[in-house]
Amino acid sequence: MNVQPKPGTLVPETVTTGPLTGSRKIYHTPAGHPDVRVPFRQITLTDPLEPPVRVYDASGPYTDVDARIDLAKGLTASRPWLAKREGLEVYSGRTVMPEDNGDAKGDKLVPPCPANRAPLRGRDGALVTQYEFARAGLITEEMIYVAHRENLGRETMLPGALEKIADGESFGASIPAFVTPEFVRDEIARGRAIIPCNINHPELEPMIIGRNFLVKVNANIGNSAVTSSVAEEVEKMVWSTRWGADTVMDLSTGRNIHNIRDWIIRNSPVPIGTVPIYQALEKVDGDPLKLDWEVFKDTLIEQAEQGVDYFTIHAGVRLHHVPLTARRVTGIVSRGGSIMARWCLAGHRESFLYERFDEICDIMRKYDVSFSLGDGLRPGSIADANDAAQFGELETLGELTKVAWEKGCQVMIEGPGHVPIHKIKINMEKQLKECHEAPFYTLGPLTTDIAPGYDHITSGIGAAMIGWFGCAMLCYVTPKEHLGLPDRDDVKTGVITYRIAAHAGDLAKGHPAAQIRDDAMSRARFSFRWEDQFNLGLDPDTARRYHDETLPKDAHKVAHFCSMCGPKFCSMKITQDLRVEAAALLDNEKAALDGMAQKSQEFLQGGGQLYVKS
Amino acid sequence: MNVQPKPGTLVPETVTTGPLTGSRKIYHTPAGHPDVRVPFRQITLTDPLEPPVRVYDASGPYTDVDARIDLAKGLTASRPWLAKREGLEVYSGRTVMPEDNGDAKGDKLVPPCPANRAPLRGRDGALVTQYEFARAGLITEEMIYVAHRENLGRETMLPGALEKIADGESFGASIPAFVTPEFVRDEIARGRAIIPCNINHPELEPMIIGRNFLVKVNANIGNSAVTSSVAEEVEKMVWSTRWGADTVMDLSTGRNIHNIRDWIIRNSPVPIGTVPIYQALEKVDGDPLKLDWEVFKDTLIEQAEQGVDYFTIHAGVRLHHVPLTARRVTGIVSRGGSIMARWCLAGHRESFLYERFDEICDIMRKYDVSFSLGDGLRPGSIADANDAAQFGELETLGELTKVAWEKGCQVMIEGPGHVPIHKIKINMEKQLKECHEAPFYTLGPLTTDIAPGYDHITSGIGAAMIGWFGCAMLCYVTPKEHLGLPDRDDVKTGVITYRIAAHAGDLAKGHPAAQIRDDAMSRARFSFRWEDQFNLGLDPDTARRYHDETLPKDAHKVAHFCSMCGPKFCSMKITQDLRVEAAALLDNEKAALDGMAQKSQEFLQGGGQLYVKS
Repeated sequence: MNVQPKPGTLVPETVTTGPLTGSRKIYHTPAGHPDVRVPFRQITLTDPLEPPVRVYDASGPYTDVDARIDLAKGLTASRPWLAKREGLEVYSGRTVMPEDNGDAKGDKLVPPCPANRAPLRGRDGALVTQYEFARAGLITEEMIYVAHRENLGRETMLPGALEKIADGESFGASIPAFVTPEFVRDEIARGRAIIPCNINHPELEPMIIGRNFLVKVNANIGNSAVTSSVAEEVEKMVWSTRWGADTVMDLSTGRNIHNIRDWIIRNSPVPIGTVPIYQALEKVDGDPLKLDWEVFKDTLIEQAEQGVDYFTIHAGVRLHHVPLTARRVTGIVSRGGSIMARWCLAGHRESFLYERFDEICDIMRKYDVSFSLGDGLRPGSIADANDAAQFGELETLGELTKVAWEKGCQVMIEGPGHVPIHKIKINMEKQLKECHEAPFYTLGPLTTDIAPGYDHITSGIGAAMIGWFGCAMLCYVTPKEHLGLPDRDDVKTGVITYRIAAHAGDLAKGHPAAQIRDDAMSRARFSFRWEDQFNLGLDPDTARRYHDETLPKDAHKVAHFCSMCGPKFCSMKITQDLRVEAAALLDNEKAALDGMAQKSQEFLQGGGQLYVKS
Repeated sequence: MNVQPKPGTLVPETVTTGPLTGSRKIYHTPAGHPDVRVPFRQITLTDPLEPPVRVYDASGPYTDVDARIDLAKGLTASRPWLAKREGLEVYSGRTVMPEDNGDAKGDKLVPPCPANRAPLRGRDGALVTQYEFARAGLITEEMIYVAHRENLGRETMLPGALEKIADGESFGASIPAFVTPEFVRDEIARGRAIIPCNINHPELEPMIIGRNFLVKVNANIGNSAVTSSVAEEVEKMVWSTRWGADTVMDLSTGRNIHNIRDWIIRNSPVPIGTVPIYQALEKVDGDPLKLDWEVFKDTLIEQAEQGVDYFTIHAGVRLHHVPLTARRVTGIVSRGGSIMARWCLAGHRESFLYERFDEICDIMRKYDVSFSLGDGLRPGSIADANDAAQFGELETLGELTKVAWEKGCQVMIEGPGHVPIHKIKINMEKQLKECHEAPFYTLGPLTTDIAPGYDHITSGIGAAMIGWFGCAMLCYVTPKEHLGLPDRDDVKTGVITYRIAAHAGDLAKGHPAAQIRDDAMSRARFSFRWEDQFNLGLDPDTARRYHDETLPKDAHKVAHFCSMCGPKFCSMKITQDLRVEAAALLDNEKAALDGMAQKSQEFLQGGGQLYVKS
């Protein structure tokens, strides 16, 4: 079912559900782990000789025809083991305050999600985070889950698939032919990958972010003081994961932030990220100068108890970096960065995020909230890319990464932004070096600023490249970037564009799972299986609609031509005729020869008389 | 005026005219050459301190408010000097035959364009082509024109612009700080650039294609046996150049090919390319096996007399290459390639295009029709990229390039297609080496096959990269690729996407003209000049519309915030406040210090007490 929530609806009631055309949800349980139920999407093809194609599926139960969705109840726990995990304890939690929702009252107040429950936290001295388990040499259910998920069942699909790894250039990444739970553990222990998974978000289907895994995509949603509602935001979360968002950041500002977040998390199968400083700023009436450690700390605990999986923390914006932005064309373009720069400069004081970083780690560790160390000084224009401010902050982020690891936390690093093509690789290399290979998570980057309205494309180019170079997760950019808040269509366009970028990066890195889908598509194309082409694509609906604009009849779905060339000029058709012809010729010579490949070889060697009519 | 021609209209009457919002057409005449009148588009900005931005303008008189457009009369000659050029002669020309228009009759026959005139050809022994003039050390008006055009008047705009050249990586290209006619001549003589300009297309505004110039974009149009009409195709030509197509290929098949081409050329300010084998095939009822040299030769002369500026000739598909495609996932996907492969294989004979290549050169030289040596064996899928068939053909194209040069012709080389990211650079390097630096002209390449409906994006990624690596012209791909014929909206989306790719490539190469527009956009963004942001963009209409969806009021066009963050969270606003604050602080210390930049320097060195409140 496709829904367009009415703007202004106070409580979300329905969201888009149902499978993508031609696909069905399947689950697979690794042997010996009955609790671990890993989802995939399986695309069935019309040719009985073609195996179904199994693809990564971030969409959660919403695309499962058997799932019963009730937003007020939230999703069923995908991590039932959490309830049994020693080292965690239920406690009463912080009391929700009116300012958590911007003092919204009466019919302006979004009600809390009824699915709320008392929070968990780590007991003193117990292992809590995935990083801690990994360092201790322990394999968690989450690690087993993501290992299985990353493999996409390719061991059962195409025997030759593992060879594909050779064909790529991964710039020093170490992508294994087959992902094991041990490999996952080692990568997490090394700090090279994270599984963002707050213990208070049991609805989450675990996923991994790291350079040696599939490139991931984040979608930003969130209402603003100017527009949108809770129902729209919950739908955007569901909608973005439907098209392939691996994580979602809720960047809401304005009123009802707390309760909107409740609804989103309780219904989200993907990790939710936030920027806690946004809510902290709301609590002090939007005045950066009124911010302090107490209000920030309170906000961290509030959101950690709700189940936010990763926090963007702009602790790398230090006082001495601020003057480095003075000559920039576009100054500071990160909201968090500009808030902290203002705060530092006004009181001429060091950032409290930097000074209290230890305490921040202690809070986040207790819930296994991952760090997304914010790039508050990222460039906002081509002219400002890779400058002293950006790289100065990046060095600080490297320093903080080590502190966070020391404290037991999982860490990834945020990156730009706006970077011309020739500076992207330099940026990636600098991040790997300074931040000790902690996963990089970039916004775009946009490769030019001259195309407002098309910044999904200006940035999709940069995203594909940095994904290839080693970026672990790509934050999408929608067509509305720099112009307005994305609506549902924009979210879809942004996600699809970034899935293209991520996949193009995976292919180029030589990821063993990546080429299977391309090859299935190419075979469908060559044999004119139109329905299979639509269904194998990232967006079957749009592909089908475009095709039908010119050739709407059902008969054309099996036609051996299309509207571009018509029947007479179709190169694929001609090639097929050519193959039939060649095959017939070969049949006549079969006794002496052994198939076209050998023929072609001999032909080349002999200067040849291969295709003489008999 | 915006027009949507009625499908099926027999004669084109109107097309889209008028300037882009915020822009006006200007012309500039280089000193001493009154005949040479070079068009630019000038974007006026609202800030009186900001100089207007001059951009490259491929749109011809259609965006000139003073131009009188009459499609039946065709465009006024932009190259009046041709009429005076010695070495050219008027002659009666070939008689148009019914089969030239697929035997269309009565109300199915598109009438010829009344603007037709008797053709020119080169006299025996005279210099005709730009290559011949360049080799003889002579500078033509076309060379003066394109030199002036490429400079974009930057010598008058920003004194510091030339420094920009240092900031880029051009992989061995030799982009000059300032383009002179002598440089143009040398590049053409070296075979590294071409000015496609048939002497029978005086309406053409000359442009240059080469690695050391701005990256160009081609748009494909053309009706098919299945759909569209002459009025639509003329409008698509005008429409595509409006958004920045530097050349247009007319790939029409079906009836009325000859007369549709007449209407297009007589009204086209950009070079028109064709694939003559398509029309030749129409003349033999669509049966590749009936093709021969006579019908092909006749078609070359027919189209050369009409004024086609470059021909795609698939002379590199040789008999011995065909078996190399046998094991491919998608065989042969070039129409021209598959036609020739079929022809070769059926009779087990060498391609007549290859065998008659000398004669083809002699015909094309006489009219200065440039070669676009076709890549008939380009890969049609990720799996087939950079294979033996593709590279075998490329080597043959290198051999033919030398023959064509020897014969006095201008040459560029067509390239793929479908190539994963990590194989793009290899492809570019191979082309430069095998084809002796003749300009490369690629379709995309698509970097993955899994997104039908979004192939402008899958290929825009590859196009930006190959443009950076040295590709001279990028053939656009529209969202309808692989699904249907592009309509007007698709053409626009394709052109804008490819303008992004070309510009991102220019920026990364360090082209001195490229960053000016980005910087102007970034300054407009930072100072909240919304109208300037729209107008500086590649598509002002879409940017404005997106902005207005959320904040429609005129007041918001000068608002110091936007709908993404609202006033409270706007990082640019906060940064501006921060600068004001910092500036005030600085004022108080002015006696001792010298501006923020020095301050920042000292602050870094001294560990600093810069922003102490006074």
